[in-house]
Amino acid sequence: MQEFVIDVAKAGKLRHASRLGVEPFLASLAKPTADLARAPISKFQVGAVGLGVSGRIFLGVNLEFPKLPLNHSVHAEQFLVANALQHGEKRLVFIAVSAAPCGHCRQFLQELRDAGDIRLLITDGKDPQVRPLSYFLPHRFGPDDLMSRNFPLLLESRSNDLILVNSAMSEINFDISREETNEDLAEKDSKKRDLLKEASFGAWLRDNKHSLVDLKLAAFAAANASYAPYSRCPSGASLVTRKGQVYSGSYIESAAYNPGLPALQAAIVAFICGGGGAYDEIDTVIIVERKGALVRHAPTARLALQSIAPQAAFHHFEVDVQSRE
Amino acid sequence: MQEFVIDVAKAGKLRHASRLGVEPFLASLAKPTADLARAPISKFQVGAVGLGVSGRIFLGVNLEFPKLPLNHSVHAEQFLVANALQHGEKRLVFIAVSAAPCGHCRQFLQELRDAGDIRLLITDGKDPQVRPLSYFLPHRFGPDDLMSRNFPLLLESRSNDLILVNSAMSEINFDISREETNEDLAEKDSKKRDLLKEASFGAWLRDNKHSLVDLKLAAFAAANASYAPYSRCPSGASLVTRKGQVYSGSYIESAAYNPGLPALQAAIVAFICGGGGAYDEIDTVIIVERKGALVRHAPTARLALQSIAPQAAFHHFEVDVQSRE
Ligand SMILES: [Zn+2]
Ligand SMILES: [Zn+2]
Repeated sequence: MQEFVIDVAKAGKLRHASRLGVEPFLASLAKPTADLARAPISKFQVGAVGLGVSGRIFLGVNLEFPKLPLNHSVHAEQFLVANALQHGEKRLVFIAVSAAPCGHCRQFLQELRDAGDIRLLITDGKDPQVRPLSYFLPHRFGPDDLMSRNFPLLLESRSNDLILVNSAMSEINFDISREETNEDLAEKDSKKRDLLKEASFGAWLRDNKHSLVDLKLAAFAAANASYAPYSRCPSGASLVTRKGQVYSGSYIESAAYNPGLPALQAAIVAFICGGGGAYDEIDTVIIVERKGALVRHAPTARLALQSIAPQAAFHHFEVDVQSRE
Repeated sequence: MQEFVIDVAKAGKLRHASRLGVEPFLASLAKPTADLARAPISKFQVGAVGLGVSGRIFLGVNLEFPKLPLNHSVHAEQFLVANALQHGEKRLVFIAVSAAPCGHCRQFLQELRDAGDIRLLITDGKDPQVRPLSYFLPHRFGPDDLMSRNFPLLLESRSNDLILVNSAMSEINFDISREETNEDLAEKDSKKRDLLKEASFGAWLRDNKHSLVDLKLAAFAAANASYAPYSRCPSGASLVTRKGQVYSGSYIESAAYNPGLPALQAAIVAFICGGGGAYDEIDTVIIVERKGALVRHAPTARLALQSIAPQAAFHHFEVDVQSRE
């Protein structure tokens, strides 16, 4: 299985074997990483390699999804950042990318603290010089154009203070209470009963002692970690494979609005980083978002899923934000 | 009514009255233009002012659409370019924008011929210097990374060689033949019969001697003019207001995929440039796209329309591409 996160010990070992300096070593990984890209529309595979302040290495590739508008695509740099976020990395210090980063990505990366100082190298051979990101997007539009400087940025710790609301529970397909057994849940809801009857999913529930409640809680946690400072409409996604692996991802916003990363795509990044293969392995997806929010994610995620993994069941539920006294 | 295109004579008159040089005069329009932006989510209004090689001035503002993901937003620079395209402008030579252009827009603008040479000024006072676009996106990713240089670029003449296919006609709500009368069409299709019964739309058909066929042809023409060199999946949209005005817009792609402009949004740009007010004026929208295309636009346009103009009827139909001998 290809690893998308290389821990400090392994990174050191690989670099030593390569006899390269840190940045040339990281650059040498960009091309092989690109081979992992899933670009069925453009066939243009991009690989991105990021060094975290922890010493870990994070990889990213571009993803394209047929039968959907192109703005559902995930760029390699976005994959890399979502991957770093999912693994608790607090800062990126260097990025090597196999092709010139597009403006969309240069903008997306502005959500990182001291983004302008991130060292960036394009490994296509046309410009062998490492330069700060500020060079690639001078006079940037960024978080400080819209927010105060003390707001936690993309990789920094935050909670969106989301709470589960009982009144919202009636809109969803199953209750959130941890006390209920799978049988109780199945009794209540015919849709879920059908789901539970399905061999693979039922087996997963039995073997892993998980329940759909756990899947919902994974989406809920991802929504709480979502980076949505501009709209204040966070979102999270979780998915479970037929084999019972659970992955989740947080919606990421951009000060420039359009270059964000939807929660579904973030969960797919987690799925791929976790060794996921074809998207037909995906059994169920859950999206959570704010009740009555100005930005709605679920209908678009449902539509996207119909193209990406039409066999997958889709659920969504809503949460509220805790008021601060 | 606010004009979004200023013709050469009027531009000359206004500039003379302002006693400013050309570029300072254009810059002076950015702030008042921004006041026309429709930004209900961010409240961050942006205005863009472009000078075409014809001497005409094109304005652009940002648009945001509640209840949809933020990547449905239209940035001021995108509005400006769609506006110029819709008015047959062949080249932009100067752009003034009221806030730093985001990376998404710097990327979108790369689809213009000699994009790097376009002179750009940010009028927020922080950097009063006019600079070439190449300064704002050095080491760009652009069309030449994916295409040969002789392909017609965004504002250049092109046709996508789309043809109407009879076999596709069964999937649509009414026939395309120009020979048919409204009554014939109404007879055939109960859905359209219902539409025609609707007072406002029926009145429009009678008063304007248009038919839904004309609306379809407007969408078809927009799809033929669509800029989709990367996916080769062009798309067009047309819309008619309750008062009978018809607007259309072409889908615009970006080499970087995500920063494109959907046909529906392009038609909304045309609607606003034509004096359109609230989106509840929109009566019917038609989207056309390629049969069996790898990139599908219609389901997303339908979803978007449900939030933008829920009262509007939505139709889509498919076309084929003429094979070249
Ligand atoms: Zn990119
Ligand atoms: Zn922009």
